[in-house]
Amino acid sequence: MDFSLSEEQQLLLESLDELLERDCSLAYIAACDAEHRQPVEFKRAMHEAGFLTLGFPEEYGGTPTDTMTLCLIAERVARQGLNLGYSTEILQVLDILEFGSEEQKQAVLGVLAEGEVPFALAFTEPGAGSDSAAMAMTAVHRDGKVVLNGTKTLVTNAVDSKYLLTMARNPDATDPRRAISMYLVPMDTPGIELSPILKMCWHTADSSEIFYNDVVVDESCLVGVKGEGFVQLMKNFEVERIMTATQSLGLAEAAFEDAAAYAAQRVQFGQPIGNFQQIQQKLTDMAIKIENMRNFVYHSAWMVDNDCLDRTQAAMCKRYCSLAAFEVCDDAMQIFGGLGVTEGVRVERLWRDARGHRFGGGTDEIMVHIVGRQIVKQHSR
Amino acid sequence: MDFSLSEEQQLLLESLDELLERDCSLAYIAACDAEHRQPVEFKRAMHEAGFLTLGFPEEYGGTPTDTMTLCLIAERVARQGLNLGYSTEILQVLDILEFGSEEQKQAVLGVLAEGEVPFALAFTEPGAGSDSAAMAMTAVHRDGKVVLNGTKTLVTNAVDSKYLLTMARNPDATDPRRAISMYLVPMDTPGIELSPILKMCWHTADSSEIFYNDVVVDESCLVGVKGEGFVQLMKNFEVERIMTATQSLGLAEAAFEDAAAYAAQRVQFGQPIGNFQQIQQKLTDMAIKIENMRNFVYHSAWMVDNDCLDRTQAAMCKRYCSLAAFEVCDDAMQIFGGLGVTEGVRVERLWRDARGHRFGGGTDEIMVHIVGRQIVKQHSR
Amino acid sequence: MDFSLSEEQQLLLESLDELLERDCSLAYIAACDAEHRQPVEFKRAMHEAGFLTLGFPEEYGGTPTDTMTLCLIAERVARQGLNLGYSTEILQVLDILEFGSEEQKQAVLGVLAEGEVPFALAFTEPGAGSDSAAMAMTAVHRDGKVVLNGTKTLVTNAVDSKYLLTMARNPDATDPRRAISMYLVPMDTPGIELSPILKMCWHTADSSEIFYNDVVVDESCLVGVKGEGFVQLMKNFEVERIMTATQSLGLAEAAFEDAAAYAAQRVQFGQPIGNFQQIQQKLTDMAIKIENMRNFVYHSAWMVDNDCLDRTQAAMCKRYCSLAAFEVCDDAMQIFGGLGVTEGVRVERLWRDARGHRFGGGTDEIMVHIVGRQIVKQHSR
Amino acid sequence: MDFSLSEEQQLLLESLDELLERDCSLAYIAACDAEHRQPVEFKRAMHEAGFLTLGFPEEYGGTPTDTMTLCLIAERVARQGLNLGYSTEILQVLDILEFGSEEQKQAVLGVLAEGEVPFALAFTEPGAGSDSAAMAMTAVHRDGKVVLNGTKTLVTNAVDSKYLLTMARNPDATDPRRAISMYLVPMDTPGIELSPILKMCWHTADSSEIFYNDVVVDESCLVGVKGEGFVQLMKNFEVERIMTATQSLGLAEAAFEDAAAYAAQRVQFGQPIGNFQQIQQKLTDMAIKIENMRNFVYHSAWMVDNDCLDRTQAAMCKRYCSLAAFEVCDDAMQIFGGLGVTEGVRVERLWRDARGHRFGGGTDEIMVHIVGRQIVKQHSR
Repeated sequence: MDFSLSEEQQLLLESLDELLERDCSLAYIAACDAEHRQPVEFKRAMHEAGFLTLGFPEEYGGTPTDTMTLCLIAERVARQGLNLGYSTEILQVLDILEFGSEEQKQAVLGVLAEGEVPFALAFTEPGAGSDSAAMAMTAVHRDGKVVLNGTKTLVTNAVDSKYLLTMARNPDATDPRRAISMYLVPMDTPGIELSPILKMCWHTADSSEIFYNDVVVDESCLVGVKGEGFVQLMKNFEVERIMTATQSLGLAEAAFEDAAAYAAQRVQFGQPIGNFQQIQQKLTDMAIKIENMRNFVYHSAWMVDNDCLDRTQAAMCKRYCSLAAFEVCDDAMQIFGGLGVTEGVRVERLWRDARGHRFGGGTDEIMVHIVGRQIVKQHSR
Repeated sequence: MDFSLSEEQQLLLESLDELLERDCSLAYIAACDAEHRQPVEFKRAMHEAGFLTLGFPEEYGGTPTDTMTLCLIAERVARQGLNLGYSTEILQVLDILEFGSEEQKQAVLGVLAEGEVPFALAFTEPGAGSDSAAMAMTAVHRDGKVVLNGTKTLVTNAVDSKYLLTMARNPDATDPRRAISMYLVPMDTPGIELSPILKMCWHTADSSEIFYNDVVVDESCLVGVKGEGFVQLMKNFEVERIMTATQSLGLAEAAFEDAAAYAAQRVQFGQPIGNFQQIQQKLTDMAIKIENMRNFVYHSAWMVDNDCLDRTQAAMCKRYCSLAAFEVCDDAMQIFGGLGVTEGVRVERLWRDARGHRFGGGTDEIMVHIVGRQIVKQHSR
Repeated sequence: MDFSLSEEQQLLLESLDELLERDCSLAYIAACDAEHRQPVEFKRAMHEAGFLTLGFPEEYGGTPTDTMTLCLIAERVARQGLNLGYSTEILQVLDILEFGSEEQKQAVLGVLAEGEVPFALAFTEPGAGSDSAAMAMTAVHRDGKVVLNGTKTLVTNAVDSKYLLTMARNPDATDPRRAISMYLVPMDTPGIELSPILKMCWHTADSSEIFYNDVVVDESCLVGVKGEGFVQLMKNFEVERIMTATQSLGLAEAAFEDAAAYAAQRVQFGQPIGNFQQIQQKLTDMAIKIENMRNFVYHSAWMVDNDCLDRTQAAMCKRYCSLAAFEVCDDAMQIFGGLGVTEGVRVERLWRDARGHRFGGGTDEIMVHIVGRQIVKQHSR
Repeated sequence: MDFSLSEEQQLLLESLDELLERDCSLAYIAACDAEHRQPVEFKRAMHEAGFLTLGFPEEYGGTPTDTMTLCLIAERVARQGLNLGYSTEILQVLDILEFGSEEQKQAVLGVLAEGEVPFALAFTEPGAGSDSAAMAMTAVHRDGKVVLNGTKTLVTNAVDSKYLLTMARNPDATDPRRAISMYLVPMDTPGIELSPILKMCWHTADSSEIFYNDVVVDESCLVGVKGEGFVQLMKNFEVERIMTATQSLGLAEAAFEDAAAYAAQRVQFGQPIGNFQQIQQKLTDMAIKIENMRNFVYHSAWMVDNDCLDRTQAAMCKRYCSLAAFEVCDDAMQIFGGLGVTEGVRVERLWRDARGHRFGGGTDEIMVHIVGRQIVKQHSR
């Protein structure tokens, strides 16, 4: 076993450190959060520095890398206190690069090259949250066209996206397991209506409810094979869970740093509060959780890169990291006392953002649903 | 032992039910929260119905009652989802009625009669949070005047108050334990400057940092005895802790009701999610915590009314209820899935407001400081 | 509301205090535990003092009392550190007094009068634990006789009992909900075989697996109505759960006292360990849990006495108290450090005995099964 | 990073698997536990297979290896359900090989070669548990002799040891930090008296209180340098903590396997209990904790082998693993229901043994003491 970073990874992280220091100050992040807007400038800077096409095949202008490296980058960005779905976006673009038509690939890469968000994933529905099989949106193929009808919700970053990567059910499918297809729908297609959803967390990413009323697109909008949409989407789903867990880890690391520094400096009863065992116990258990999260994420990423990741590992990683990161942030808030709930103190935002990851990418409970059944199955004989 | 309510208490709660239904709708509370403003209209309605002077001596236009009844009312208001420092305010006015001069009493009652907030308690300082003994603000008595200098922070509801009940240190005091005095300072005194503090919670109560720059008031602003300010303030402090715990309880009850109703109605995987054991376990443990909080609050209130409350009981009640209420709200949020973090869903606000009580009125950790030492002392011989 | 004890209850507890001091020393309990034997001498003393027939109708030589008082007694005995199924036994005898024939009543009372255990409840089976509906033992009625076949397990205190109160299925029953009957089977009936089960806890009560091989008894052994056995047994089942919870409470109180005294006296790093916040936090949370357990038990007992107890309350009380009591004992053990796992230190036994209550009388998980469904049902419309 | 085992490690583990299957059956372990005796036969077999000198320098007949490999072996043995202080013993012998005289080395290796325990570490005292600086036992050097007086307690495996590695204070030391020396005292020296301590856990290792009454040994019994005993002992202390954590991990793995298999096979309510979400949630969180423990141990072992282990990492590893392993065992016991507390079911023993590790090698609380202060120090500036 070897727990060290490669030289290449170290260099990459150093250059990322510089980029963050220059283009992603704490004040900048706080402003984006307060104004409920994406960190567009920083994303552009990341693109220019090559981070947004890291992991892409060379033929599409990218620099191939492994999942471990993508995780290290995602962790570092989140540790800055920025809850950016950085690697999730990369993975979704990879789906298009793998399954999309040449035209779709070029469209997506073109938008990306301008530092913009190419598309938003329209997946969840009001009646189909954890139970994605209950998806109700329909896509009817007729005369070379596709007619989409239905409602999506909690769609992330739709507002400025050029396309909606829309999952919909083909009512004429005979095999119910092959009834979902994937469409890359231009945002300006008539019949699409966005309604913003305000959240207590994740202000640097917008959320929308999206209504599709007789939205007609060309059949060429189909991504990949008809009826294989779910399979295509699931391709990178386990990896996305690990990336989400990585974001949780980074947020927790930021909260820990703030809390430890505050505990060392805040004086009450004539001494730094870090001298008190109640605070020390919190800090110790926060550090333990961070060690656990980090190991969990790295081990899982290594499994991806060595083709031995299973659903169980990814789901356990997601469950542990989402919950542990929130607990770390909650303890950090508590160490700040009354100050912790005031705006302007970074832990306040970290705490809100970390909470969001306990449902985003699959709830804590769904992870049990995935893992628990698998354990029992493996032990049945 | 007897766990039943008196007929009088039942009637009072029924009339409160009506009042809440009429003047404190869920939409109204949500609007106050969104607009960051006090529920002034509802407070006026409560005053008209006699609730705001319940517990006051008859000679001051009040209707005397016991602590148990005040708790029942505070619980009911909070269960509506409104985080109102209802009984805390009553208790603070009682301090004035007990220790204030005739003039001060009339001033306070006069403001109250108009349904306004008479005063805000200016107690906490940037450098004196849990450690109130570190209070730095000075009150220098000179020639019939008092000069106040210093900074207070996290002062609740100062914006619309007529007075600031200010705790300050008399630098000339010889006995350090008798160095703090209490002053009722008119808000419009020159030298007072308010700076708003934005919080993620408690939007229906404003918070301020307050700067006192050579604020000069008449010596008649002194409340009670010079040097006895801390003792006077502490008079009702244990009761206030129980009232704060009661608020936590009410918020938790509201969250539980929302979550149970949602679990019974939200369908996923072909059935209400309340059929799943993970949800049932959450609901069971939420109900258990609510039973515990309710018993803790009632038992403590009974101890106040029977003159057998000690600091330990009040601090344990506060510690348990603050934390348990937040856990209940967090579970409720989780049951709502992604919907739980969106504005417009009541649990989102309850969750934020419940979190605030883990520092307001004394942090979780200070309660251990109070209780733990006492237990050890009692068992030493 | 009123949280005070009646004068009668106080007198009863005082006389119990004396009895315990005289006939139930800590050394005596430790010896019973080490020798794996029932505290026969103490039970005899309790009987002589009238405690074992408290709650019985006067016509059977008892002194009627309420459930609250029975709980207070059970709590006091357990607080001595003795895990005695005191009130459970009383309740089971009450079942016989209510449903049994005159002959059965006299038999049971006769044994009791000699300070002996009249019967053991043979209910659980290897294949029917939490799922009591899966009961497999058969009772075939034929020619005025009943033939019993099957296996019972984890039967408490069978070794010295005169009878086995046996639950069995009548294979000829048409309504599956009325297929279980109750029989009072003399222990010396041929075909009954006991096999002792050693447990890590509850050494003062033996456990047995019991094999019934063609056990033939007279039909007069039937208790109450054929097919109504389950209903009869359930009559006092909720009350039993509260009694079990009461025992947990008492054990926790004993552990708390030991731990607090040790923390106040044990010196490390130049001061009593009770000065350290990690220990203070444990003690505070232990005290909080004890307050909660006590309130839960008393409130539930009051509900029994006022005919408003429901299954939900009893199951919540059982779930909370079993788990909280074990946590208190575990913290107590931890406060004792290495000493805590050595025999001779009382917390070591309390810790083991408290653990047993997390399955005895229904597992933690079954309580969720009972409560969760009920909550969801109440909130469905 | 690389999470794979080397080929060498895999081969070693395979040969260990065979050894365990042949010489360490579950029945054998259960018998040792029931009879409160060391698994002498198995230790002999391990020695023959070369496992007990793995890690020793070649010059002393050993096969050098890294800490990672020692951990893998310790994990595997514990996963068999055997709580053997395997690697702790190796590390203690390494201390002798490093600091001892040639004579002492040969003595120790000689005993070891016969498959016996060479010595027991006599460190803890009744008044010096967590606070090792409070050590009271004295070692007075006089005329080429050393006179030892004092009491040691909770000494592991003293009964069959040939020597007592005794830590004692030199009263004549001027620097209090250099006042503790280490002596290898023959067990049969007059004045040594052993009193057995019975524990609820770790029955395969005996515990003793040991009285030293004017025990006179030759000065050649001094190990290493006078006054450096503590430093010498601490040399491998961090590594020992990791080894203890590894044992906890192995016990937890065993408990998990038993519980998962039982959940998959035990039928209640017409289906395996593993189908119920309450059980699935337990199994999921148990698996998560095992993943965390394993990563923590491996990462820490890697840090040892790469000379970058600090006290903080070792203490965090110990704290997490001791507690998590006990929680896993407690959940496993709960999954077994009533069966879980009966002797003969492996989880019953695992649960007891895992509990012991929450004080052995340093309590949960001392770990906070070590880590918390360090974190605060690092964040002070």
